[in-house]
Amino acid sequence: MISRHDCGARDLDDPLAPLRQQFDLPQGVIYLDGNSLGARPKAALARAQHVITAEWGTDLIRSWNTAGWFDLPKRLGDRLAPLLGAQTGEVVITDTTSVNLFKALAAALQMQASDPAHAGRRVIVSERSNFPTDLYMAQGLAAWLDRGYQLRLVDSPEELAQAIDTDCTVAMLTHVNYRTGYQHDMAAISSHCHAQGALALWDLAHSAGAVPLDLNGAGADLAVGCTYKYLNGGPGSPAFIWVPEKHQARFRQPLSGWWGHATPFAMDPGFAPADGIARALCGTQPIVSLALVECGLEIFAQTSMEAIRRKSLALTDLFIALVEQRCASHPLGLVTPREHARRGSQVSFTHPHGYAVMQALIARGVIGDYREPAIMRFGFTPLYTSFADVWDAVEILRDILDTLAYDIAAKRDAVT
Amino acid sequence: MISRHDCGARDLDDPLAPLRQQFDLPQGVIYLDGNSLGARPKAALARAQHVITAEWGTDLIRSWNTAGWFDLPKRLGDRLAPLLGAQTGEVVITDTTSVNLFKALAAALQMQASDPAHAGRRVIVSERSNFPTDLYMAQGLAAWLDRGYQLRLVDSPEELAQAIDTDCTVAMLTHVNYRTGYQHDMAAISSHCHAQGALALWDLAHSAGAVPLDLNGAGADLAVGCTYKYLNGGPGSPAFIWVPEKHQARFRQPLSGWWGHATPFAMDPGFAPADGIARALCGTQPIVSLALVECGLEIFAQTSMEAIRRKSLALTDLFIALVEQRCASHPLGLVTPREHARRGSQVSFTHPHGYAVMQALIARGVIGDYREPAIMRFGFTPLYTSFADVWDAVEILRDILDTLAYDIAAKRDAVT
Repeated sequence: MISRHDCGARDLDDPLAPLRQQFDLPQGVIYLDGNSLGARPKAALARAQHVITAEWGTDLIRSWNTAGWFDLPKRLGDRLAPLLGAQTGEVVITDTTSVNLFKALAAALQMQASDPAHAGRRVIVSERSNFPTDLYMAQGLAAWLDRGYQLRLVDSPEELAQAIDTDCTVAMLTHVNYRTGYQHDMAAISSHCHAQGALALWDLAHSAGAVPLDLNGAGADLAVGCTYKYLNGGPGSPAFIWVPEKHQARFRQPLSGWWGHATPFAMDPGFAPADGIARALCGTQPIVSLALVECGLEIFAQTSMEAIRRKSLALTDLFIALVEQRCASHPLGLVTPREHARRGSQVSFTHPHGYAVMQALIARGVIGDYREPAIMRFGFTPLYTSFADVWDAVEILRDILDTLAYDIAAKRDAVT
Repeated sequence: MISRHDCGARDLDDPLAPLRQQFDLPQGVIYLDGNSLGARPKAALARAQHVITAEWGTDLIRSWNTAGWFDLPKRLGDRLAPLLGAQTGEVVITDTTSVNLFKALAAALQMQASDPAHAGRRVIVSERSNFPTDLYMAQGLAAWLDRGYQLRLVDSPEELAQAIDTDCTVAMLTHVNYRTGYQHDMAAISSHCHAQGALALWDLAHSAGAVPLDLNGAGADLAVGCTYKYLNGGPGSPAFIWVPEKHQARFRQPLSGWWGHATPFAMDPGFAPADGIARALCGTQPIVSLALVECGLEIFAQTSMEAIRRKSLALTDLFIALVEQRCASHPLGLVTPREHARRGSQVSFTHPHGYAVMQALIARGVIGDYREPAIMRFGFTPLYTSFADVWDAVEILRDILDTLAYDIAAKRDAVT
């Protein structure tokens, strides 16, 4: 049996433990929702103060050059690139994940449509369990293009290989499922896509900063993701889009705004896309929110995704083991894969009263979240979650479940 | 002749003068570029600190409800609405102007295409001198729709009436021109559009907070605009989109993300647009930058657009008069209309060495900007620009022009 003492000992041995000091975590809270909104890097406050007082307040319009605002989407993209297995000049931080997905899917459909071998394909493959906004954006794009594109949604990862066939033009998949924490094999699926003549477009919302990624090594074609979850960029911080060098010359997207123009200050009335990744940009970005993304990335620069992954698996393994040991009498169902290679950095359990249990957890300072149907979701962020946190969270969960079971039994006794 | 003393006397009489204290303006700078990036409301610093430490840092994911993040685009839109002549529930603050223009133009084309009387129209009318990104977005949308839509660009406002004919589906116009400061007659043009069976889509980037607007009264159909110029929302702060109640039920746009869904938390795999203005939303917004928009709007709540307009015209009249009096010997050409009804809140002058003169002005603390060809642009923001500022700016301009003329003459003498 694992003890709290064992957990404390693991914290003492944890090379990532000192990084927790770089985050502002509220007293009395065990925060297991970094997969929804990452915690605040302490540095974000001073950074915002600087951007607001010195860059905006004092230097005003000159900051587009002197503070590097104009280069910010690319400069931050280059800082993020190593975490994705991307090269310098392949990533920009801009717009929202939804908008970037629209650009990437539109570009992928266009690349296929301009290739005589694949021009007739009209099937976009995804999962019914994909994050809904991804499906909404694909529906919106397909309806507006009005060229017969249709979504083919599978109900389980096992059906993907068959669904991605020679009718499929693009497979649009979220690498780690937001609800279950299931992680796809990006290299195997991308490779299968290519064998069938399809392109592989990946949403990394629950992967970036959570699991090691090797976009170029895996042969992925395009990717998007968000910076406000595991990357700790701040609430709603701008998202990213990855266009690999191999596809940049062919990458065209309909949101052709000034920031993606080849000569944005020539004020030419005709659009001509910039060379390289800048063509994925569109309009003026929210500089304060964008600048704060760097504070999260600076913490990642002090460690490696391999070290983060080791601790992530240790935390999620520990959570599963403790829940199964200490809450064994309760009707919990593990949703997240036990297999390491198929697991992201979260653990989800079902419980018939999942919503009420999660509300009780939050009231006692253990912040996870709830997703239909009956799923309690717990995110583990190795940069600021300790092994003792895991113990304490499970203790509170056990206490809540024991009380709930007692109350249900008492109610049943009162009725009978 | 006007004297500096006269200007000082006008400042003493100015009911808006006290509002300048609510802005952080750098020492030694006369800021005449609020039409590019508005100055910083002092309140923005404390607001950012609160959002970052209390809402993000302490309350974390709970702030979506407790801090009202989820309602922020609508709540701020409702605060902005009176400045636009819009109703409550007709405006959201979200995304970028370019992205909102894409949504609005797509929706307008769709409204027309689904009306049997106008379904065959394929001409989008705009001006060649429109802000380039507006043209780029229209080009991007038209190319991707691939249904024969074409841009018909006129070279002067006088050509609009003829260009907006029964082939025209949508007129997409910027109300106040970014380069010349020319202000269109929104009511007359919108009315002409309707007489021809076209819709009127307005970009208010250089109008919102600068001139009184009456979108509903003018019969406009759709509008977008930015919050980081005259509204002082902060660098790249999210933009706005106005969809009047009369068009909301028919308004459909391709960027159909989760925030525009009828039931965003039901996680339904199929998209269904929200009722009302929320259907103009798409993805998760940058909360820190978005929250700061309110600090600018709070200052507008202390006065009226009528008072702002009175002072704006007084400032631009004064600037024109002083330049024409004191720089009369120099080859300056007034680009901005003298007629009040046709003027925004900026004044542009050409000068053969306009770029060099503007650099010299900036070096001496008078910050305007330069736009090809040969145009020096000076923006006047009544909330923080004084009449004495105008005098001092013109004095520095005069000194620079005199020196330049002397240098040119000296060089000519040296050569001959």
